Amino acid sequence: MEEKSNTLKYKHLGIYTQNENVVYMRKDCHVCISEGFEALTRIRVSNFKTSIVASLNVITSEVLLPGEIGLSQASAKKLGVSVNDTLRVSHLEPLDSLSYVRAKIYNQRLDYNAYEAIITDIIEGDYSNIHLSAFITACAGDRMDTDEISDLTKTMIASGKRLNWNKEIVVDKHCIGGLPGNRTTPIVVAIVAAHGLTMPKTSSRAITSPAGTADTMEVLTNVTLSAGEIKEVVEKEGGCLVWGGTTQLSPADDILIKVEKALDIDSEGQLIASVLSKKAAAGSTHVVIDIPVGETAKVRSTEMAEKLKEHMETVGKAVGLHVKVVLTEGTQPVGRGIGPNLEAIDVLGVLKNEKNAPQDLKERALMLAGTLLELSGKVEEQKGQEIAKHVLESGQAYKKFEAICTAQGRFSKTFVAPYQFEMHAPKCGTIRKINNRKIAKLAKLSGAPQSSTAGILMNARLGEEIEKGQLLYTLHAESNGELNYALEYYENHDDIIVID
Amino acid sequence: MEEKSNTLKYKHLGIYTQNENVVYMRKDCHVCISEGFEALTRIRVSNFKTSIVASLNVITSEVLLPGEIGLSQASAKKLGVSVNDTLRVSHLEPLDSLSYVRAKIYNQRLDYNAYEAIITDIIEGDYSNIHLSAFITACAGDRMDTDEISDLTKTMIASGKRLNWNKEIVVDKHCIGGLPGNRTTPIVVAIVAAHGLTMPKTSSRAITSPAGTADTMEVLTNVTLSAGEIKEVVEKEGGCLVWGGTTQLSPADDILIKVEKALDIDSEGQLIASVLSKKAAAGSTHVVIDIPVGETAKVRSTEMAEKLKEHMETVGKAVGLHVKVVLTEGTQPVGRGIGPNLEAIDVLGVLKNEKNAPQDLKERALMLAGTLLELSGKVEEQKGQEIAKHVLESGQAYKKFEAICTAQGRFSKTFVAPYQFEMHAPKCGTIRKINNRKIAKLAKLSGAPQSSTAGILMNARLGEEIEKGQLLYTLHAESNGELNYALEYYENHDDIIVID
Repeated sequence: MEEKSNTLKYKHLGIYTQNENVVYMRKDCHVCISEGFEALTRIRVSNFKTSIVASLNVITSEVLLPGEIGLSQASAKKLGVSVNDTLRVSHLEPLDSLSYVRAKIYNQRLDYNAYEAIITDIIEGDYSNIHLSAFITACAGDRMDTDEISDLTKTMIASGKRLNWNKEIVVDKHCIGGLPGNRTTPIVVAIVAAHGLTMPKTSSRAITSPAGTADTMEVLTNVTLSAGEIKEVVEKEGGCLVWGGTTQLSPADDILIKVEKALDIDSEGQLIASVLSKKAAAGSTHVVIDIPVGETAKVRSTEMAEKLKEHMETVGKAVGLHVKVVLTEGTQPVGRGIGPNLEAIDVLGVLKNEKNAPQDLKERALMLAGTLLELSGKVEEQKGQEIAKHVLESGQAYKKFEAICTAQGRFSKTFVAPYQFEMHAPKCGTIRKINNRKIAKLAKLSGAPQSSTAGILMNARLGEEIEKGQLLYTLHAESNGELNYALEYYENHDDIIVID
Repeated sequence: MEEKSNTLKYKHLGIYTQNENVVYMRKDCHVCISEGFEALTRIRVSNFKTSIVASLNVITSEVLLPGEIGLSQASAKKLGVSVNDTLRVSHLEPLDSLSYVRAKIYNQRLDYNAYEAIITDIIEGDYSNIHLSAFITACAGDRMDTDEISDLTKTMIASGKRLNWNKEIVVDKHCIGGLPGNRTTPIVVAIVAAHGLTMPKTSSRAITSPAGTADTMEVLTNVTLSAGEIKEVVEKEGGCLVWGGTTQLSPADDILIKVEKALDIDSEGQLIASVLSKKAAAGSTHVVIDIPVGETAKVRSTEMAEKLKEHMETVGKAVGLHVKVVLTEGTQPVGRGIGPNLEAIDVLGVLKNEKNAPQDLKERALMLAGTLLELSGKVEEQKGQEIAKHVLESGQAYKKFEAICTAQGRFSKTFVAPYQFEMHAPKCGTIRKINNRKIAKLAKLSGAPQSSTAGILMNARLGEEIEKGQLLYTLHAESNGELNYALEYYENHDDIIVID
């Protein structure tokens, strides 16, 4: 099939394109001419052992010589190539799974085999960003029924590694985001693990928010651990707080999430499949899911939340998980900090039982830890929260948290951003609304989560009576440029906090 | 807002990424660090006069020096930059129109203003391929009502130039593709223009097919004409056969079509908006639309076709066009050739009244030309087809065709591909099915339309009794590699032509 002449010498170009595989070839290279390749042609690139699929970018300058080939960083890493290696290129055989994506675009139901074919090709890296975006969009907006979501979840579980903790009960929790600063997870893990349960928590980085649990935990400890290292930490401490991306649990999810981030969407079907596939693959048996409900939270109405709850619990059962969904208030940010370091400061405050620690964050964490203790069967119904409170206030939870961080390799202190800008009330009155989305946007424009000390420190709560000129919140940034983008956004939006 | 230090020197990298704007900057460049840019960040790049939005690819090698910036070819052209020009980069202000795309993903109706905002940003180049793909997918699969399609069509018309021919009646035709070899347009234009009507035909290149009318016409004449040149040709000959891409009519459509091609979809709403916006912008008043219906055509059932017909005629009226939709048989390819040169040979055969010219192509062209003559009011009802036949068989149509090609700059001869491979019947029997989609795929794998002599020459018709070993069709290719990809596809699909 492939001819010997379809070979080119690898040259290091060092172009980082995020997750997308890109191959660079000269327009006048013999292979482009003989194969009829043109820009954006999908090409298979092989090192004679393994191969990847990449989109072609055509080079017309001396960056490459004829007979040379370049690869984006991710592709070069996947193929494990070195300078002057010989690579072979060929046309991509038609991707059959794309016909399922098209069927889904046209509102057809897909079965297990269809989702399996799609997920397999996604993990192989055979989908371009255009294909990934179409698949995500076609699955969004209520276009999957619970059987389909179950099938997608199962294929995502089957596509990666699956952990086994040799425990009958392994607990986990998850929050359907949307609420800035809602960083209960580290507190819940500390309480539950201190009480003797096994909670190997893998978290994602921020998708559309100013910080994910992994971003916040990375301030305090190492979160990028190998499967072996995670196992060691959990065996020793009963819990961990790591990033899920390196664990090869549900690897398709990691690819899909990057495109969802660019689109700034998180659809119901993908959301359920993403959460539950990670939980099942991580070896969990009992999972509590927190859905904050509020006008500007991710889930806006009790009706939507109830539907999501029902779907989550149905799909959970279908994939063999005990799932309990809790609806919580989602009308304003939780705690004071928004952004990795600022949230880490709140978490430590609660764990250390500091006087000025944010009480709303503490109460949420206790409720969730209590629910998890009850769901596990480890404590009696109605007793969970009381026991959680005791574990926290006695200092056992902080001790456990410190031990987990140390087991993960370090327990670091937090930092405060060099650039700060205080926002004051333009008039007196009552705080009527705090727009979670706009607060999150502001924190992201300030640089969170990439700049780990960036974000927002809130100083206002719903219903509070305030004076004109009173401090509402402080912007934190690591560069003047980022601070300016946040300020520009602030100047163009007068409904971030509504006072009247 | 922007600091002076946000400037970099332009270096020519000569990387061609098709339509997507990509900017290349060093990871360790002062701007990336101070602004917090990372791979795939959307960045505004300005030459102090105009600006574009591009996705960042980060360079870690000596391809660029710190302080230098590169651009993909399309972006460099849009900005009109030269080596060592100073460019300024800044964060992209949040794109408000993406919130409408998200609303559409979540099944909400969009109004005129929303579509206008989206189309404006698309034309500005502010959407990445991920965003374009999401917009196309969200609009596919029956997710737009006719009011929405009308609004989208109107915004697409308003977004570009609009031609004015100073004629009361300007006719046009369009075929909703899906049928390989169905190249009636050049014949219809020749007949109708020879009869004295004005038909300034702009066509697209292939979206998902082995050839578009523009690809086929490019074999015979120049199709890339300026608006001024088109005007001259039409004033002289009453008709033209040019590519619509350079005319800046409905420029959003040209951008969307490239992504649709990568997805291999063509959704109803986008399809109607694409076709009718081009027609209205081209100054047409009366339009006949041909919808071939068949199991493997683009429109698979009479029911779907009737719905599309109704929507087309409704939207047509809303944007001020007289639209008549004709449903035609779509069970097999039309004519013999599939691919630019092979189709051009068929078209010339019909126009020259050659004995062995494909009769099915001739009959279709006469029916459409007749319908158009009647719709225009230029000839009596029921008389159109008879008059069209006379114009064709008298040689007037060929004379007009030759004159149009000459006016467009050349009238070239056709060529035949260097690589050919005959496909013979594996058994005797009756030809029961010819799969249009798979025949088209085979022609595309053979290299059509990029390789203009590539494609398929059909030698079989539905219902025909054949002997074992009889010639069914011939693959034509310009490279051995492409021929092999077609053969590999053939070997893996035994239902391209069904004989029993």
